[in-house]
Amino acid sequence: MSFQKNQTHVVNRNERFENIANELKPTFYRKNVPAKKVIEVVENKEKIHGWEVKPLQSADQLPDQVLGKGDQVILDFGDHQVGYLSLNIQPVGSPPDAPLHLRLTFGEMPVEMAETFSNYDGWISSSWLQEETMHVDVLPNHLTLPRRYSFRYLKIEVLDTSQKYKVSFDDVSIESVTSADVDNVETFENPDEELVEIDRVSIKTLQDCMQDVFEDGPKRDRRLWLGDLRLQAIANYATFQNNDLVKRNLYQFAAVPNQNGQVSANLFVEPNLIPDDTFLFDYSLFFTTTLYDYYQATKDEVTLRDLWSAAYRQVEIALERMDDKGIVEDDDSWWSFIDWHPELNKQGSSQAILIYTLRRTIQLAEVLGENKQKETMIAKLKKAEEAVKKYLWKEDKRFFVSGEKEQVSWATQVWMVLAEVLDQDQNQMLLKRLLKEQPEIEMNTPYMHHHLVEALFHVGLEQEAIEWMKMYWGGMLRDGADTFWELYNPKDKEFSPYGNHLINSYCHAWSCTPTYLLRTYL
Amino acid sequence: MSFQKNQTHVVNRNERFENIANELKPTFYRKNVPAKKVIEVVENKEKIHGWEVKPLQSADQLPDQVLGKGDQVILDFGDHQVGYLSLNIQPVGSPPDAPLHLRLTFGEMPVEMAETFSNYDGWISSSWLQEETMHVDVLPNHLTLPRRYSFRYLKIEVLDTSQKYKVSFDDVSIESVTSADVDNVETFENPDEELVEIDRVSIKTLQDCMQDVFEDGPKRDRRLWLGDLRLQAIANYATFQNNDLVKRNLYQFAAVPNQNGQVSANLFVEPNLIPDDTFLFDYSLFFTTTLYDYYQATKDEVTLRDLWSAAYRQVEIALERMDDKGIVEDDDSWWSFIDWHPELNKQGSSQAILIYTLRRTIQLAEVLGENKQKETMIAKLKKAEEAVKKYLWKEDKRFFVSGEKEQVSWATQVWMVLAEVLDQDQNQMLLKRLLKEQPEIEMNTPYMHHHLVEALFHVGLEQEAIEWMKMYWGGMLRDGADTFWELYNPKDKEFSPYGNHLINSYCHAWSCTPTYLLRTYL
Repeated sequence: MSFQKNQTHVVNRNERFENIANELKPTFYRKNVPAKKVIEVVENKEKIHGWEVKPLQSADQLPDQVLGKGDQVILDFGDHQVGYLSLNIQPVGSPPDAPLHLRLTFGEMPVEMAETFSNYDGWISSSWLQEETMHVDVLPNHLTLPRRYSFRYLKIEVLDTSQKYKVSFDDVSIESVTSADVDNVETFENPDEELVEIDRVSIKTLQDCMQDVFEDGPKRDRRLWLGDLRLQAIANYATFQNNDLVKRNLYQFAAVPNQNGQVSANLFVEPNLIPDDTFLFDYSLFFTTTLYDYYQATKDEVTLRDLWSAAYRQVEIALERMDDKGIVEDDDSWWSFIDWHPELNKQGSSQAILIYTLRRTIQLAEVLGENKQKETMIAKLKKAEEAVKKYLWKEDKRFFVSGEKEQVSWATQVWMVLAEVLDQDQNQMLLKRLLKEQPEIEMNTPYMHHHLVEALFHVGLEQEAIEWMKMYWGGMLRDGADTFWELYNPKDKEFSPYGNHLINSYCHAWSCTPTYLLRTYL
Repeated sequence: MSFQKNQTHVVNRNERFENIANELKPTFYRKNVPAKKVIEVVENKEKIHGWEVKPLQSADQLPDQVLGKGDQVILDFGDHQVGYLSLNIQPVGSPPDAPLHLRLTFGEMPVEMAETFSNYDGWISSSWLQEETMHVDVLPNHLTLPRRYSFRYLKIEVLDTSQKYKVSFDDVSIESVTSADVDNVETFENPDEELVEIDRVSIKTLQDCMQDVFEDGPKRDRRLWLGDLRLQAIANYATFQNNDLVKRNLYQFAAVPNQNGQVSANLFVEPNLIPDDTFLFDYSLFFTTTLYDYYQATKDEVTLRDLWSAAYRQVEIALERMDDKGIVEDDDSWWSFIDWHPELNKQGSSQAILIYTLRRTIQLAEVLGENKQKETMIAKLKKAEEAVKKYLWKEDKRFFVSGEKEQVSWATQVWMVLAEVLDQDQNQMLLKRLLKEQPEIEMNTPYMHHHLVEALFHVGLEQEAIEWMKMYWGGMLRDGADTFWELYNPKDKEFSPYGNHLINSYCHAWSCTPTYLLRTYL
């Protein structure tokens, strides 16, 4: 996820928190994974992005292929991988009398092997496209690339050798890395094989995103976003249980708030801990709810107490946006995220997320015996809820609205259900109405679809929840997903909020939640 | 220099020779050289290749320049450099939320900054063009490039950052490397400043080519060619006197002859000592003459004795090409080098080089007391000389001819003079005639021009020799040379035997000889 927000801010660094986070640096699990097959990618209008993979031969036969200037080979590693590539290059012919000029292209999806990166025209940086050109001066060579890549497919192009020699490749393999302890995962038993597969791919998605921090996507942005962290954390409690990584990331956010005490929407960890200058209404509140979820999973009261004032501060800051009527103010900027949708108005969902967070803040205050803060929050909650019912609920539409133009979106209804503004029966009816009437402003990300499915489970619509999961995440599987994608709109499979599907992330943390949903609600 | 010859050969490796060579690995002299100026390269039809350098500002002001996507800056290091580049990259703006995508282009000449490498259409490998693209994940970054470059100019292009940040550069510098000990060079005193400058640039050329071995060119081919070694060695005796490097390289050639005992025209030293599969009549003989020159410079009889049989073997192999008449057989292949000239017939020059070598072989045999070999060679020399006078000297033309079509070339006359087939007076007349009549088949390389100038000095035409040097090497200086070029044809300054002047080497060993000529003959 990328934003173009930029405001002057000062980092109010807490070294103690930073040290605690540093001490929780995770163990990495590494595995050598060899390339499996030599493939070709051919046009097929029926397939996602219009490209289909055709296997040609086993990767064992790769050393027999001799490549000269302009030749290329595409390898398939059999599954999504995150890690460090190495390969052997052998000269064939006379002693190499000029450097080898090579281009390596890494792709999570067949489209990245088939379409030229130089045609990329999206608005976020082309530097995310995983392509390297390099000169190799000495042959034979065991080449190890210093950067980490996220991919299933690798294209090797020989840009030039010389007239006197060609090259062949062997032992093309990756050292895969993750901080997820796969041994902790319990088997998910279910007679429905599709659900078992959805669970498996969810876990693989989470695993590949678990690195030095919970990354949003190992291809892009390779960093810690609060919106992703919140969902990764709950999926992690249901699977790997590497709870110290959640703790580490919470401490990292709390270590570098701005001068106002607000935590950033995302953090960089290299060359050192640096908060981005993007601040989002919903994401900052998710610091508090992530701490709530962490406490529920671990009962770690020491951490709760340590991070309480940071958590409470996020709610205070959010409440500053509440107007006299009790509704959070809207504006035209990217002030709150909610979903990747150019027309979505964020006010209604943001109001719901504030209520959702207030409920959890009150519970945490109770655990800590912070009665004064608890009472303050209870009063704010009351005001926010009443305001929703008075101003955002439209009896004629039977839906909650958002913004000046009273937009009816899926996001607003879903978040209002999760915020428990209505009672259980009304919530159930609201969601049934939503599924039936299908308002125009739909959902574009697995992130938002997660909230719909969680809402369906929450109100007892288990069958609808499962069907939706099978339609949506199952749809990705039918479209060839090895890990779940950042973006998936079944009605517009080319959709990219960045202007080009080549830059989409096809292993994205916020898409990993079915394992949590299945293991929690079934 | 590159050839497209390929013949099956077996390496007859001599480990003792290889070990001796390994023990003579040179000391490297390293020096930090910062970039001097920010420049632009503008069109100017008057200048070499049509490009002129215009200084813009001091490199000290570089950090003030902020570069975003599509921006570039060109730096001038003030002189030719060989070494390893490092630079600091600072992010400007928000924390970098995407990798930096960078292209660095290194150029010995302004043309390499101005013309796009992707248009390169020469027949030798484009992989010699010194250009790297790379992604930098962490900023700020102190970037050190692992490959060695040969350049004066550096173009830094920012291919992409993101919408949130740009970059600036500082501390752009090179760690220059050479195995030449500059402290050994004595001052060359001469009232003619142009000659002093020619001497200085010759030495700089040699210095930049002296690395782990005597390289032909630090940009291209970066390896040990016998034709270059021979000239570097004599320039080295007159300047750096790093005589052990000559010894090392002689042992390297002798360590890896083919099954017939012939030394290769050139060697690779990485990943280990490997002879190229190119064999040239003249270059193999130059192993013997280089040993002769080494002995004259050092009186190192141990090495002479050790390498004698290899040296003698080269002459034997060359003599196998001599026909019953006493003339070396001609053919249409690249059997002998002589010069880069598509129409040059090599027979006459090769015959002369054989005679030139025989004279020196006889002297070495005498030193070693190898009388039988000496007598054999004296007989062969007699036959070769008589054959030249009988078959190659054309009284009507007053020139030596070469090949079936009796070609009259500069190369043949020059080499016949150096071979001392005629007496001193006749040689002088021949050269005067050559300069006056100017036969059509001219000289294209400083390598061949060296032999003309040496021949002029040799026959006492000192004034003509100096004038020629001032015309030719002085011409390169007037055309902006920092080091002398692989190729220079004053009548066709775009000339490249490779089909594109971008790939020419502009610091080339075989062009370094004026320092030898000036210091030897003046």
